[in-house]
This record gives sequence, C-alpha cells and structure tokens, in this order.
Amino acid sequence: MANTRVSILGATGYGGGELLRLLLADPKVSIAYVTSRSKSGVPVGDVHRNLDRLTDLTFSDPSREQLLADSDVIFGALPHGASAETLAPLVDGGARVIDLSGDFRLKSAEQYKKWYKHEHPRPDLLETAVYGCPEFNREEIRRAKLVASPGCFATAINLSLLPAAKAGLLAGIPEVVAMTGSSGSGAEASEGTHHPVRAGTLRPYKVLSHQHIPECTQLAGLAGSPIPGINFTPISAPIVRGILAIVTCRLTRPVNKDEIVRLYSEFYASSRYVKVLSKREPECGSIAGTQFSEVRARITDDGRLHVVTAIDNLLKGGAGQALECFYLQEGRDKEPGKPLDWMGSWP
Amino acid sequence: MANTRVSILGATGYGGGELLRLLLADPKVSIAYVTSRSKSGVPVGDVHRNLDRLTDLTFSDPSREQLLADSDVIFGALPHGASAETLAPLVDGGARVIDLSGDFRLKSAEQYKKWYKHEHPRPDLLETAVYGCPEFNREEIRRAKLVASPGCFATAINLSLLPAAKAGLLAGIPEVVAMTGSSGSGAEASEGTHHPVRAGTLRPYKVLSHQHIPECTQLAGLAGSPIPGINFTPISAPIVRGILAIVTCRLTRPVNKDEIVRLYSEFYASSRYVKVLSKREPECGSIAGTQFSEVRARITDDGRLHVVTAIDNLLKGGAGQALECFYLQEGRDKEPGKPLDWMGSWP
Amino acid sequence: MANTRVSILGATGYGGGELLRLLLADPKVSIAYVTSRSKSGVPVGDVHRNLDRLTDLTFSDPSREQLLADSDVIFGALPHGASAETLAPLVDGGARVIDLSGDFRLKSAEQYKKWYKHEHPRPDLLETAVYGCPEFNREEIRRAKLVASPGCFATAINLSLLPAAKAGLLAGIPEVVAMTGSSGSGAEASEGTHHPVRAGTLRPYKVLSHQHIPECTQLAGLAGSPIPGINFTPISAPIVRGILAIVTCRLTRPVNKDEIVRLYSEFYASSRYVKVLSKREPECGSIAGTQFSEVRARITDDGRLHVVTAIDNLLKGGAGQALECFYLQEGRDKEPGKPLDWMGSWP
Amino acid sequence: MANTRVSILGATGYGGGELLRLLLADPKVSIAYVTSRSKSGVPVGDVHRNLDRLTDLTFSDPSREQLLADSDVIFGALPHGASAETLAPLVDGGARVIDLSGDFRLKSAEQYKKWYKHEHPRPDLLETAVYGCPEFNREEIRRAKLVASPGCFATAINLSLLPAAKAGLLAGIPEVVAMTGSSGSGAEASEGTHHPVRAGTLRPYKVLSHQHIPECTQLAGLAGSPIPGINFTPISAPIVRGILAIVTCRLTRPVNKDEIVRLYSEFYASSRYVKVLSKREPECGSIAGTQFSEVRARITDDGRLHVVTAIDNLLKGGAGQALECFYLQEGRDKEPGKPLDWMGSWP
Repeated sequence: MANTRVSILGATGYGGGELLRLLLADPKVSIAYVTSRSKSGVPVGDVHRNLDRLTDLTFSDPSREQLLADSDVIFGALPHGASAETLAPLVDGGARVIDLSGDFRLKSAEQYKKWYKHEHPRPDLLETAVYGCPEFNREEIRRAKLVASPGCFATAINLSLLPAAKAGLLAGIPEVVAMTGSSGSGAEASEGTHHPVRAGTLRPYKVLSHQHIPECTQLAGLAGSPIPGINFTPISAPIVRGILAIVTCRLTRPVNKDEIVRLYSEFYASSRYVKVLSKREPECGSIAGTQFSEVRARITDDGRLHVVTAIDNLLKGGAGQALECFYLQEGRDKEPGKPLDWMGSWP
Repeated sequence: MANTRVSILGATGYGGGELLRLLLADPKVSIAYVTSRSKSGVPVGDVHRNLDRLTDLTFSDPSREQLLADSDVIFGALPHGASAETLAPLVDGGARVIDLSGDFRLKSAEQYKKWYKHEHPRPDLLETAVYGCPEFNREEIRRAKLVASPGCFATAINLSLLPAAKAGLLAGIPEVVAMTGSSGSGAEASEGTHHPVRAGTLRPYKVLSHQHIPECTQLAGLAGSPIPGINFTPISAPIVRGILAIVTCRLTRPVNKDEIVRLYSEFYASSRYVKVLSKREPECGSIAGTQFSEVRARITDDGRLHVVTAIDNLLKGGAGQALECFYLQEGRDKEPGKPLDWMGSWP
Repeated sequence: MANTRVSILGATGYGGGELLRLLLADPKVSIAYVTSRSKSGVPVGDVHRNLDRLTDLTFSDPSREQLLADSDVIFGALPHGASAETLAPLVDGGARVIDLSGDFRLKSAEQYKKWYKHEHPRPDLLETAVYGCPEFNREEIRRAKLVASPGCFATAINLSLLPAAKAGLLAGIPEVVAMTGSSGSGAEASEGTHHPVRAGTLRPYKVLSHQHIPECTQLAGLAGSPIPGINFTPISAPIVRGILAIVTCRLTRPVNKDEIVRLYSEFYASSRYVKVLSKREPECGSIAGTQFSEVRARITDDGRLHVVTAIDNLLKGGAGQALECFYLQEGRDKEPGKPLDWMGSWP
Repeated sequence: MANTRVSILGATGYGGGELLRLLLADPKVSIAYVTSRSKSGVPVGDVHRNLDRLTDLTFSDPSREQLLADSDVIFGALPHGASAETLAPLVDGGARVIDLSGDFRLKSAEQYKKWYKHEHPRPDLLETAVYGCPEFNREEIRRAKLVASPGCFATAINLSLLPAAKAGLLAGIPEVVAMTGSSGSGAEASEGTHHPVRAGTLRPYKVLSHQHIPECTQLAGLAGSPIPGINFTPISAPIVRGILAIVTCRLTRPVNKDEIVRLYSEFYASSRYVKVLSKREPECGSIAGTQFSEVRARITDDGRLHVVTAIDNLLKGGAGQALECFYLQEGRDKEPGKPLDWMGSWP
C-alpha cells in the first residue's frame, strides 16, 4: 500500500518540528512539503538541529495547487489568524486538514472575535470543523475533513473536566491554575522566555483572560455540563516542556471519594494515552517527551471536585494530539509500535 | 550602646544560614553561638560557603546555661518537634526566643497533634507564643517573649487573605494553589530535590493535607473571618527560591474590582515589605533574595476574591520574617539601612 | 524467528531504565528479567515512572541458573565493583554479557586497582573483555562474549581523540575540560545533585583524577597514539542530560585547518551516530535524548588540535552505547527503524 | 561631607541595574541621572523590578552639560562602540568616568579594530585610560580620570593568570575553557538566551575568537609574562549568574605543587574579594550575587599550571568591578560595611 503523503505548513516552529520528528520515524508516511516563507530553501536540519543529518528535507513555499496535488493530509502549524486564511482554500480544494492553531476550535464566530480579537475570515468552516479531542470525539474525528486540534492548556483542562462533565456533575465556574513550560511560547525569543528572567521565576499572565477558556467551556457544555466560564490563572514556569493543571469545581450532587476515582478510571479505560492515577501525583517529569497524560481526581472535604493533570504541552497538548487524530483517520489508532506510542525518557 | 547578642540554634540549615548572613552584616549585632550537634567544631564557612572567609565563627554545642548567659535573643532554626523540646527550657530560663519551626504556631494542642502527628511537649507555651506575622500582630510581637515565626507557604497565604479576612469578607473554604522553590525542602538531599528529577518537573505533594493549613485558618479567624479549612495544593517547582500562591475565595458580600484594590492597598500602606501591585503580576523573580513580597488582588466575574502573592521562601517566608520580628522588638523597624532592607538582584 | 531474550541486572538506575525503555519498544526483543535486590517484587513503573502502565514487568532477584537459562544476553547496570562480582560467574556459565560498569574496561589489573581503589576480582576476564567502542572496535564487539561498554566522559573524550590518535597525531598529554549533566550521578540523591545546590552552580570535581582517564589513554594507545595521561577537569553542570567536552592536544606534525576537518569527516563517514560539524558548534541541546553525538575539530593558531564533542551521557555515553554493541552482535546494526535510531525532541 | 553625585549612562541593562542597586544602598552616594534614550521618562522600577517602590528615580536623557554639571562620577554601561562616542566628550569636559564597555580596555587602536571590527573614534584616550583591575593596578586606578573596567570573561582569566604572569612563569599560549551564565548576554532576548534552548544545553560560541582575549594577553604582558595569544573556548551555560574558568599553561620553569599554592595565596593576600582555595573547588554557586571570586591553582603531573576561577559575571565581572574602582578613588576601599561587601545568598 502506498504511503500516506503528508505536508506540514509552518514547519519551522516547535509544533511543526515535533510533527516532523514523529512522522519521519513512521515508515508508512511520506513527507510531501514542509513549508515556510522565511526559510524556504533552508535544510530542515539547520532549523531543527535534532533532525540534522536525519532527513534531506528542505523548507519550501509550494503553491496551493502543489499542496493539493501532492498531499493526502495537510497539518497546519501556523499562527492563529494566518492559519484560517491559509487553510480555508485548502479545505475548499478538498484537502484533509488537521489544524494546530486556535482558528477552528470555537463553534461561534462571535466567541472567536471576543477571544482572538479579530473577525473570523470563514465562519462557515467553524461548523464543519471537528474539535480534535479523541477522548470526546473519537468517531467524528475519523470522518472529519477539518480537525481543530485543541490548545495545550485546553487539553489539560479538558482531560481534568471531561469525565465529570459527561456525568453532568459540574456546577458553576471551575477554578483552574495551570503552569506551562517555556516551549509553549514557541520558537521566537521574547522577554518572557529570556533565560535570565524565566529561569528563576514563576509568573502569571493573561490572568482570567486566556484564550483557551472558551474551547473548554464549549466542550464541557457539549459533554453535558454547561458552565458559564472558567476562572483560569495561567503561569509561566521554568521548565521547557509540560503543563500541570489544578482544577477544582463545585458539583451538582454529592460524590464520594471512591466514586470519583471509579468515574475517572472508567471514563479513560479505553484511552491509551491517559493514565488515571490514585496513588501518586501527576507530574510533568514522568510524561515529558511523551503523548501520555496523568490524571488524578479527588473530592475535597467540602465536596468539590479536585483534579490534577499533567501533559507534555508539545505532544499531548500539541503535535501529538494532532497525530492522534491523524492515526484515527488512518485507522491506525490501535496499531502497536507507532512512533507516537514511544516512551519518553526519565529523567 | 552594647550590641545585641544573638544565638542561632540549628544554624547549619538554610534558615539558619540566611539568618546568619543577614545578622553578620548588622553592626549592632554580635553573634554569641551558632549551634549544631553534628557539626560542632566546624567553621561556619565550610558549611555556608557564601560565608567562607567572611566570618571566623565555628559551630558549637553550648549548654543551656551558656546560651542563657550569653544571648539576648535566641533564634530557633531546628526541625519541628526538636524545636519545642530545645526551646522550652530556654523560654523558662527567661530567654527571648524567636522560633522558625512550626512548634509554637498553633494555639490548640489538639490541632498540633492532628497536623504534626505527635503530642505537643509544652502546650502551656502555645498560649504565650505570639504568631510572628507583622502585618497582623505588630505590637504583640514587640512585647513577645516567644515568637512563632510563620511557615513559608503560610506567609504567602496569609498575605493573600489578611486584608479580606480583616474586613470580614471571607466566606467558605479558600482554594489555594502554591508553588515552592527547592530550598524550601532544606539542606538535606532527597528524592524530591534530586536535580535530575526536580529540574524538569512540577509535582504536587501533600495535596489537601499540608501542615501549614491550620496556621492560616487560625489567623483568618483571629483577623475576623472564621474559615473551616483551606483546599491547598502545594507544588514543587524547579526554582531554588520563591513561593507563588494563587488564592481564590467566595466572599460574604459583593465587592467590586476597584474596591478590592483599594482595600489591599490601604491595608498594606504601612507595611514596608509588601508591594501591592495593580498593573503587572507578582512573580518570584522580582523578589528573589529579598524580604519583599508582591500581592495583587482581583474580583472574578462570578464575584470571588482572586489573589496572587509572591515571596522568597527563605526570607519573607523564613529567616527574614523572623528578623522582621527581631527588629520590631529592638525598636529598629523604622531604622533605614538595615541588611534586611537590602535589595535583591535581578535577574 | 524467536525474539532475543534479554535480562538487565541492576535495572532500577538510570542506565537500566534507559536500556529498558528502548528494549521495550523493540518488537524483536523479550525481556527475561529486570533485577534488583532492594526492589524485588516492585512493578517497574513504580520506579521508572515514564514506563508506568507501559509494561507489566516487575523487578526480581533471579538465581544465576535462572538468568543463564532464560537469557540470550545479559546487560549489567550495576555499580563498579559489584558488577565484576556478579557478572563473572555468568560469563563463566556461557552468557553473552554487556557491562555498563567500569569493571572490565581496563586491560591492566594494576591500573584498575590504581583508579578504582580495590583489587580486581577476576583479572583473567580483563583480557577477554572487548571495549565497546563501535567507532574503534566494531568487528571485535560482534564476536565478544563480554563487552565493557565505555564510560560517559570517556565516550566524549574518545570520540574527540580517535581520528587523530588513529593517524598517529597525538603528542603529549591532552587538556580536557568536560561538563556533565546531573543524571550522570545516578538515581541516588546526594549533596552534589541537591537541586538548590546544583541548579545555580558549575562545580569541578575529581580534578585531574577522574577514573575515566585510563580507559581513554588506553584506547588512544591502541589506536596508534600512546599518550602518558590526560589533564582532565570534569565539571558538574546544571543540565540533566548531556556531556560537552573541550579537548586540545599538541600534535606530532603540523596539520592544517582543512586537513583536520577532512580527517574527522572521513573517519566518521560510516558511523551512523556521529555527526561531524564544521559550521555550527556541537552542543548538548541538539542531541539530548538521542544516541547521536556531534563532533567538531579545529587546529589552533599555535598548531594544536582543538575538538568539541557533545553526547547524551545516558545514551551514547551509557545505555545507548551498550545497545549499539548489542545490535552489532545481533547483526541488526544496519536495520532501519530500531528504537535506538529514534530522534530526540528539540527543545 | 556632601554625598558623591553619580550618574549611570545606559542604566536599563543588567550592568546598569546592578550598579544602581548597590549605589542606592550606599548612604554616601546620591544618584544624579540614570540615562536611557528609549526609556526616558519611565520609572526605574518598571524596568528593574527588584527596585520597584525602592526608588523614585526615573530614566532620563540629560545633555552633556547637565551630566558634567551634576555628576562627580559617571559610569558608562553602554554597548561597545556607542560607549566611546558618548564618553569621550565627557572625559574632555573633565568628568571622572568609569566605563564598563570594552571601548577603552586595549592600549592599541589596531588591536581594537581587529577584535571589535571598527575604527576606534578616540585612540588618544586609549593611552590615558587605566585598566580597572584592582589586583594589578590599584594605585593607578585611584588617580585615573578614565577607568576601563574589565570584561567578565577577562576578569576570570586575569585572576587565573596574574600571580603566575607577575612571577614571569607563563610560557606559550594558555588553554582556557570558560562557561558563562545567561545574564552575560544582557537584557535583550535572543536565540541563544531563549529559555527552551538555553535551559538544556551547553553551547560553545566565538571559539578561539572572543574579544576578551586581547585584554588578557595585554595584562599578562604588562604583568611580566608576554604571551602571544590565548586558546579560549567560551561556553554558554544554563545558569543565570556566574563564570567558571579552567586555565592551563606551560611554565617557564618547574614549579612544585606547594609553591604554586603559596604564590597565589601571597599574591592575593591583600585582595579582599579574592578567596584562594586549596581544599575545595571554586564554583559559581558559592559566589553568585557577590563581589567575591574563588581561585584554586595546581601544577599538573606534566608541570603545567592549572587554575580554576569562579566569579559572578555581573558583579566581580562587571558592575562590582567598576564599583571597586570607584571606592578606590573615593578612598573608601578599606571602609567596612559598604554594600559591595555584602554577602550573597546560598543557595
């Protein structure tokens, strides 16, 4: 059987780099294009040094026609805003598209404008797009022409809330504090990722206003627990990879401590990449560099849900999530030995 | 005027080391003893390398009589448990004592047993002891014979809650997520502070069960807002110094966004070491190595209190707090140019 | 064809953990035993958290007979000293053994005693053992019954010196400064790996006396350039994984700048895991988590050889090197797609 | 006696920030101007967050006349190139100037052009300028109108070589490997200080070509040991503050191990900020945040000098060195209790 031909748009960033690293190791995939405007003509290994000598690929800037002709699947790893502009014509042209940006995650163009601060260029596609959360949407993802792969913080929050949301348990606004590694800010240097600053600090940002909030409230609602918002405090932490989320929420009815563990365990029983813990705490170190997440649920003495979740922001919270969707579509989700199933190193 | 003679018990740890560093730079203080059983006879600079060549002091193991005869003030930097055993006879002997351990912070011997897992050896002293929180207890501290200097996490939580507690605003159980630097675990190496583990992880521990909870609920109650508990999630972070706390709580009445800023600003107007922020976020980096804290208060859309606080765990959350109490007692709290007022380096 | 049955002795450490991680992902390998005395009966995932849920293996403490009966290959990941004691009877029993410790690296029992400070229990095996440096010894490794896999610092130094040594170019004692990540100290916490200490320091240790010196001088001599010693300064650095070595040496004859690049490029032309650089500098970040090394050679203005080499201490400098030897023996060194060929993540 | 009036040009960077932090704590100094073109009008605490609320100063852009009229001493903390342009007219106007840039360190305008890649605008001042190395030049610094404060790497190399150079011992070209913290790159974010990159790597740069080489060879020559160059390998390390240098060199005559320790100890006997070690190793952690350096000298088995030196790049290797010169000029170098003598925190 012929290999699946894959292109990656905006492949110079960390998301694109991780997609490429994993897809290069998959013998059933061929890379058609890795695109970049500013780095067109530059060998991939000059930008992604871990791939130096391991691929002969060069960044290029193909036309829409070339992309459509030569790709079975197109991954978008472009910045929010640019993504919708670039991907919409490819979707129109019939391409199967998996987008890592925030552009197709929200169902409502109004919400998009509110949180992303500009008009959505193609609101019609918001309906078509399938939110790429395999723990919720598995079958829809298989059939989707346009997958909107979830945000990194959003993934950690979604994994924390989904089982309770599905059971109709969430009441009111969850409190969320989540810390992120510096790779979440992307490959461009900035004040917040300047080593002398970042290495010794923990710094909140976008407090109560982070743009991943609406995709989480939307998912909770679809799952069965409409919630009016999330009090979310994101924090920059001095690790490179990982998100740790602490989520608490009032519940619609009393739930006891064993019941919550059972609920989460059963919900994730068939999810290869979610480990439900009950003896030790989820932490970034044990899942760094992997697609796996760790989730632990508790009930507090005053009856609130308390969940701790750890993911790798670039994998389960980014490129890996997009690949999970890809493998679902390819019918390869149960195939053992895929690169995505590889185990990360500890320490 | 003769110098104040100071002894530090258990001076080989990080708390004792920081006390010593700051007191050595104070020309009005003389160090009587820096004690250690295991390191008796060892020069201070062999243990605290930053002090190598800067002092001729040697650790020693003086008798109770020597300590009482030669010290005007005794700082206890001993482990919980050992602290009460060692300090009680010194208090009985008339010494002025400032204790950095958790042994004299709680008013109730029952609570002490519940959280510290052993009987308190001298419950009578729990009444006498003054909780060393200068933002609450300034005048009592001045007159105290026995000061119980607050815990590091507790200080960050106290600073977050005090103005609202004083105003009778706290309703129900606060949600607290706080991250700590590795120096908070002390000078002994352990799995949780093993560099290959700690450097790349964020790891919760003692979730909902940390022993600093009761001193915070006790203080909130004394301040005017009895609360039945705190849902506290402590997290080990890969920085060396600092605590960042995110605190939210339901309020007894609606408070608007400006009012909360005003309330916090006014409450801390005369507190030299607390900076109330309203434009940028508190963060560990800007206060590391200093006695200063940064506090920012907000009201969420659903009317909850939301406070972010940053402190240095070894200074404002440890040795520095104990020194604040010392300077209050010495009548030197307004004296400019004390070592404690020095500014930390950035980055 | 039946799978190769592999046992790992002392599998609770970082070396054993990395061996296991990579071997679990190899469908042609079955794990017979992962041994530990102190953790016998404990599930692997409780110790190596990255492997939690990914294997059902449990540490055990099998007899010599069981090991011999059920293993085609035995990896030793035991501490120096204990390793020879444990492995010698297995070698005697006919096992194929690959040892990660320092016990079989030196040809001379006297040298062993000088550097490792105790008598070698089985000097006869020092002759049999093959030093597992595939860049030098490829064919001997294929046939070896006992492979002594090189040390982490030694690997970085060997890769720096080998092409010049083979060409008979080294004159006198090389100067070597090399920095190592904290995982090189193993999984046991100690003062030197205590996070508050390690995170902010660069600290030399075993200056001019590190036990990896003699295996490097031995290899240089075998390769063609007898050298009387190495002035080696090892430095603890605050990264988790990686070694960066800076090596300079007087040469036996003038060599020009192009010639040295050519020499190194040609020497390593067929070495899959060595990347010879000439435009950018070798660095730990681009090879962390991989088997690859980066090497750059120069000639200084005063005619000295100057080489910079980067490796991952746990892979190319440890478990990965042992696996390279294993795959040579299995005739699988050219087989594409082995876990060992996987690419590490950047960043 | 009136306070000394000090201005700092280019005060938004790390060097300027550290000068300001220390000078603000000195009751005998008044700050006249802290200048910045881009941040004129901005409060100091908005840029140097550690100083927020601790000073009312605002950055400004005063004229040459204002600077001359209101300053007794002017510190230059401007980038190389801009520094000479700005400072020369102030020197001409009679100001006492201490420059932290590289613009006045070399005696030869030709050398300046070779290493800094542009013509020196005022070669006449190169003769006048005094190299601000108090361990070599103490009395000249006291009388200097223009002090060229040494570079950070240069300081570590100078301290390593000076005693041997003075004794005429250096023969041939020293080999130097030195690691630097990220604050050495200044306050501007760039690829090399991007946290995801820097945190996990050790990366050489400007190998054999760093611009601090000529000021070190110049000083060695002036001290008594002309050397034709230095084989210097600078390395970016993932700490924030600190330089660790490993220096080896052939000697003009045999020196035994005790003699070298004695030589270094005696040379630095009267240098307050240099600690000569003989039992433990110099390391960045024990001097971070202080003006102190640690130096250890050895003789290798093949008779080479081997020195390890640790400094804080922003203090002894930057702002602190400039302040040492300032205090020499003020006749306050032996005055106890200056902020510069304060002890840094450990860890």
